Amino acid sequence: MDLHIKTSEKDEYPRRKWARMINSLSGFKSANLIGTINKAGHANLCIVSSVVHIGARPPLMAFVLRPHASKSPRHTILNLKECPFFTINHIGHDFHEKAHQTSAKYSREVSEFEACDLLHEFKGDFKAPFVGESRLQIGLELKEIVDITLNNTHLVIGEILEFYLPQVALMEDGYIDIEALSTVCISGLDGYHSTDRISRLAYAEPDKATRKISVKGDILGR
Amino acid sequence: MDLHIKTSEKDEYPRRKWARMINSLSGFKSANLIGTINKAGHANLCIVSSVVHIGARPPLMAFVLRPHASKSPRHTILNLKECPFFTINHIGHDFHEKAHQTSAKYSREVSEFEACDLLHEFKGDFKAPFVGESRLQIGLELKEIVDITLNNTHLVIGEILEFYLPQVALMEDGYIDIEALSTVCISGLDGYHSTDRISRLAYAEPDKATRKISVKGDILGR
Repeated sequence: MDLHIKTSEKDEYPRRKWARMINSLSGFKSANLIGTINKAGHANLCIVSSVVHIGARPPLMAFVLRPHASKSPRHTILNLKECPFFTINHIGHDFHEKAHQTSAKYSREVSEFEACDLLHEFKGDFKAPFVGESRLQIGLELKEIVDITLNNTHLVIGEILEFYLPQVALMEDGYIDIEALSTVCISGLDGYHSTDRISRLAYAEPDKATRKISVKGDILGR
Repeated sequence: MDLHIKTSEKDEYPRRKWARMINSLSGFKSANLIGTINKAGHANLCIVSSVVHIGARPPLMAFVLRPHASKSPRHTILNLKECPFFTINHIGHDFHEKAHQTSAKYSREVSEFEACDLLHEFKGDFKAPFVGESRLQIGLELKEIVDITLNNTHLVIGEILEFYLPQVALMEDGYIDIEALSTVCISGLDGYHSTDRISRLAYAEPDKATRKISVKGDILGR
């Protein structure tokens, strides 16, 4: 290791450089668009790289939102307080530039769907808009907003109600081949990456060697 | 979209199939090993795919841990209660199989470092062990364990105290080229992927077209 960086030295770094560096530390991040709507039916869309799995039964997902201060209102939180449903939409390689553009500071009356040329799609009776370009679309109901008092961020937790995906991507054992959907991942604040599968690995057990499995879940080799 | 899956149908799915499917929905996940130690100096290592960036000032990261029930104690939480320091270590392509093996249910007296043939590395006076094979190693102090009462999971939040990385990976503008470090990412419960950079994208602004930037942060084209 060549560099040893102590966070006690943070005042020696320009603010944006520091933010880029710390944002790079968590590893590759998921790339999703969050769709919400306010009570007047006005849609909002924002890119987030902090979606995280919370549990399967009940099926819960969450994402982190930055401080909701009145000076810089977070439209997503305002909308969720008016309509407690939202969508999480995987970002594909073919529209990741449009997705990135949703991070620009548009005023609340501007719909990022229109400003960034992305298709809003209402499906069935689900209240929040899905992203038409996305090949994995999830509809959730807001369950809880956990305030992280250490830095005034918020963990927004939703319960999955339904999701849409191409049939070919769902393997028999439940694994979804999101690489086949061209879902991208993010590094730092602004790096976008496609992926190459190395392998799936079988459920690990003590005293058993690690075994590779195919995308369908079959044991490989031997 | 071919498939429309409603979570009200979850009892029609075998338990593991359901878990694989829901775990696949969040997109690509970060791949990290968490190192802890108990008061007797016994080390523990576990793989997590839920590390998330919380903020840069103060520098905070978090990860989700499954329920800490007495029947199935989570060694990481037990250790953190005895010694409130831990490490987050990026998983590289070259040792991802060993990293996956740490997910096997070893008893508490077994060190996953030894069982999975990974090098524990103590550096300076930092109390928790780093993973010697990892090319991006982060030392953190526990700040808060937020209980998620919806499903009894825990959000473990730490403040970054220091980190180590090869000098070549740190760009002038603060971006860290984690792809050059062969950091992998995860899909579902058991899919491992390497990455191919598509591009970095410049800070987005309303009424400005999206612009590609180089890995070093220079505007590309035009």
